[in-house]
Amino acid sequence: MNNTAPSSDSLFAFAVGLPTRNNAGELLEAYFPAPRRTPDPGLANAIATLGPEAEQTIDADQARLLAKAARECDDAALATALDALADTGQPLLFVSLASDEAITSTAQAYLKLHLLSHRLAPPNSLNLDGIFAHLKNIAWTSEGAIDPSELPERIIKARAAGNTLVVRSIDKFPCMTDYVVPQGVRIADASRIRLGAYVGDGTTVMHEGFINFNAGAVGPNMVEGRISQGVIIGANTDLGGGASTMGTLSGGGSMIISIGENCLIGANGGTGIPLGDRCTIEAGLYITASTPVMLIDDEGNEAGVVKARQLAGDDDMLFIRNGRNGQVECRTNRSAIALNSVLHAHN
Amino acid sequence: MNNTAPSSDSLFAFAVGLPTRNNAGELLEAYFPAPRRTPDPGLANAIATLGPEAEQTIDADQARLLAKAARECDDAALATALDALADTGQPLLFVSLASDEAITSTAQAYLKLHLLSHRLAPPNSLNLDGIFAHLKNIAWTSEGAIDPSELPERIIKARAAGNTLVVRSIDKFPCMTDYVVPQGVRIADASRIRLGAYVGDGTTVMHEGFINFNAGAVGPNMVEGRISQGVIIGANTDLGGGASTMGTLSGGGSMIISIGENCLIGANGGTGIPLGDRCTIEAGLYITASTPVMLIDDEGNEAGVVKARQLAGDDDMLFIRNGRNGQVECRTNRSAIALNSVLHAHN
Amino acid sequence: MNNTAPSSDSLFAFAVGLPTRNNAGELLEAYFPAPRRTPDPGLANAIATLGPEAEQTIDADQARLLAKAARECDDAALATALDALADTGQPLLFVSLASDEAITSTAQAYLKLHLLSHRLAPPNSLNLDGIFAHLKNIAWTSEGAIDPSELPERIIKARAAGNTLVVRSIDKFPCMTDYVVPQGVRIADASRIRLGAYVGDGTTVMHEGFINFNAGAVGPNMVEGRISQGVIIGANTDLGGGASTMGTLSGGGSMIISIGENCLIGANGGTGIPLGDRCTIEAGLYITASTPVMLIDDEGNEAGVVKARQLAGDDDMLFIRNGRNGQVECRTNRSAIALNSVLHAHN
Repeated sequence: MNNTAPSSDSLFAFAVGLPTRNNAGELLEAYFPAPRRTPDPGLANAIATLGPEAEQTIDADQARLLAKAARECDDAALATALDALADTGQPLLFVSLASDEAITSTAQAYLKLHLLSHRLAPPNSLNLDGIFAHLKNIAWTSEGAIDPSELPERIIKARAAGNTLVVRSIDKFPCMTDYVVPQGVRIADASRIRLGAYVGDGTTVMHEGFINFNAGAVGPNMVEGRISQGVIIGANTDLGGGASTMGTLSGGGSMIISIGENCLIGANGGTGIPLGDRCTIEAGLYITASTPVMLIDDEGNEAGVVKARQLAGDDDMLFIRNGRNGQVECRTNRSAIALNSVLHAHN
Repeated sequence: MNNTAPSSDSLFAFAVGLPTRNNAGELLEAYFPAPRRTPDPGLANAIATLGPEAEQTIDADQARLLAKAARECDDAALATALDALADTGQPLLFVSLASDEAITSTAQAYLKLHLLSHRLAPPNSLNLDGIFAHLKNIAWTSEGAIDPSELPERIIKARAAGNTLVVRSIDKFPCMTDYVVPQGVRIADASRIRLGAYVGDGTTVMHEGFINFNAGAVGPNMVEGRISQGVIIGANTDLGGGASTMGTLSGGGSMIISIGENCLIGANGGTGIPLGDRCTIEAGLYITASTPVMLIDDEGNEAGVVKARQLAGDDDMLFIRNGRNGQVECRTNRSAIALNSVLHAHN
Repeated sequence: MNNTAPSSDSLFAFAVGLPTRNNAGELLEAYFPAPRRTPDPGLANAIATLGPEAEQTIDADQARLLAKAARECDDAALATALDALADTGQPLLFVSLASDEAITSTAQAYLKLHLLSHRLAPPNSLNLDGIFAHLKNIAWTSEGAIDPSELPERIIKARAAGNTLVVRSIDKFPCMTDYVVPQGVRIADASRIRLGAYVGDGTTVMHEGFINFNAGAVGPNMVEGRISQGVIIGANTDLGGGASTMGTLSGGGSMIISIGENCLIGANGGTGIPLGDRCTIEAGLYITASTPVMLIDDEGNEAGVVKARQLAGDDDMLFIRNGRNGQVECRTNRSAIALNSVLHAHN
């Protein structure tokens, strides 16, 4: 059924899901089991039958029509999800985006966060302007999303019924795993992965690991440290226990950090500069952009001092603090590999 | 109705709430939705009608009488809470304190922890002697507070009913947000904020943040590190990811740490001395009381070494470990600001 | 009733409990309230009546027969647990091990993890080969263990019923306290202690503490840092906030770390070498095996440099990084104690 003209090929993304609203009827959050990016034209045409509203409540019949179109486009997973949503008998939230513009509603914010965690968009690829303004601060509880202003009455009501209302978080962002568990991951403590995190296939996030929204691990990775907003780590890189990647939202610098492939940031270490591939920072050492670093050439000789920011993005670097004299040093990570350009420049 | 004589003006604090007891009838914990400090005389007079017992079980009628008095004293929030408690039809726990003495009961301990988290008392302002002795070690579960000795039977019972009993914590202190969510805060992982924490308006506690009881952030603050028991951080101070404030309960020193306003403790850094305003510790550097610190004057010259404890409480300090020679250094945080007294003393 | 011949004295361990299975009937996990190691011959004889199957489903009557045998062997706790299991009316999982061989089933893996957390086996004493292969990756939720592939349908189903499915973790290992809460412990954040951890009597694990499976604290201990797989810390040792013990599973070295008695690893510090008794690492200092360490003799003189690995396991060491020159130094922890052998060798 893909023989229809691509009449709606400008559709950037859409999703259908179950919303939670506060007592005033305002949208708090929405669960979208199967968001889609650049949907198939056949699906886009079915969506067009919902009318021009980019954000609307749809009913079970409308969801089943979309399910039928999804099935005709060979998207069985979407069809199954839409039928399951229809079966709930609840009002469903439909949201679509014609293009990737700044966020102007809560539903749009949730759609984009879902796209990231469903691996339909890598970190730093979406326009997330306006996200903080359009995400409400919510009490995430054992009874779902609750407006904080309604919390005391809910606690008393729960206790009166012999229940316990557990408040897990007061935040604009929920935990990712309550919305999506991507294929091939382990996440030891789900409270530390925000919806909007990108957790690549083959990635294990241990208890001390953390991944913010719009940040992530390409996979496979071992994440035992903190991946700040905007930060990406490459394949086979190991972020050690308590290791820090400096963010740009508070207290950090202005340089967006990324770490390449096959790197190791040692336990309790950290970086304030981007790193290329095959880099190591020894346990306990924090490299900031302004750290003076002594370059050590391949014969073990000192080759001059640079600010760490001058090494940003280079490959094959091993950073240590010399235990003899406290000097921060950078060596090539493997003797067999040619010194990188900065090191050569100082030979 | 405030025309009555202040006959009970010695009443320090009181609260009414819902208790949990173990199988033996011992009090495990209590939820007080609206604790009050130094209640209005009209309210104190109504409390006096409950009789001389400072700690007692009251019924719905008694709660409604207090609600009426609260309303007459223009304390609508308290009135609403008391009416809601009365509506539960459950036995209610009343506790009052004539003055701020050492803690002699579990109810008193919970009242004081509530006062702190309701921002009715700043950290280090209450007499908390005896608190550990009067807080039972409790299993905090998805079914509420359970005596650990009763846990195995409860787990089997839950599983037999097709349910799951989740044990979140085995501790003397519960999580704050199950009892109170102060205005204007975000708390990404509620399991890391104990009841008794003081979380000021405008404060965000990220996933790696932690605040113990009798400790807190004046607000607004960004808390991504650990605020130990007794520690307070001032307005606009940023505690970086994994940053540590040395406590006095175990392994730390005897000096109670506080951090002033507009400070930044870098990620994975830490301090074992109090800091004044506008201080910075670079990422990854831990200053202990006995760290020798080279003072750098405003012309960049070395001005002598002091133990960090001699700098305790000073303003405008920037601490780094020199990447060239491993020396811990303290510079004035802004060149435009006059050197502080210790630095001058070494000029 | 211990007068029967020890006909089954080769029985290494056994347990009876409640299993969870996925939609395909595969075992996901099992709760064993009272596992036993080297059971009494009377009990072993009763077990023999179940037949030769080392792993089987038993019914209430069979459980009550075992309960009777347990009571006759004066094991009231086991008898009570078995009767409670029988009372559930559910199919029960029986698993036994003739000897401590490599793990060949999920049930065996859960039995061994229970043995560790019930303190029936110290870390590194059991054969855990095959454990990763025989533990399924599971979604640990507010509705119990769920196969991740079944999660989306369960989330929709829960929301349709007005409930919330909270996903706490996606991991091969569950949280210990949902299975066993050993006597005399406090565990502030249960999500950071895996089943299979050994938490000794008198141990407090604060919010930043972490204990992996097959690792632990002999007790009493204060644990505010991370105890990696295979690591054991001795009595009265304090692991400071965020402190790291280097593991061998990823990114660490090959030396299994242990820490003796009466040690203090300062906040944000860490060790990549085993330590003996009465050792201290100052806050913020990470000792790796290859760190060059200047030995300081009891008169304060420099006595030569060794690699930290040469100090592995020694007692009475105090490690600091000299704030004057960045040199990592090791002093005897107390002046009254004789220098250890390595230090003497350099005098």
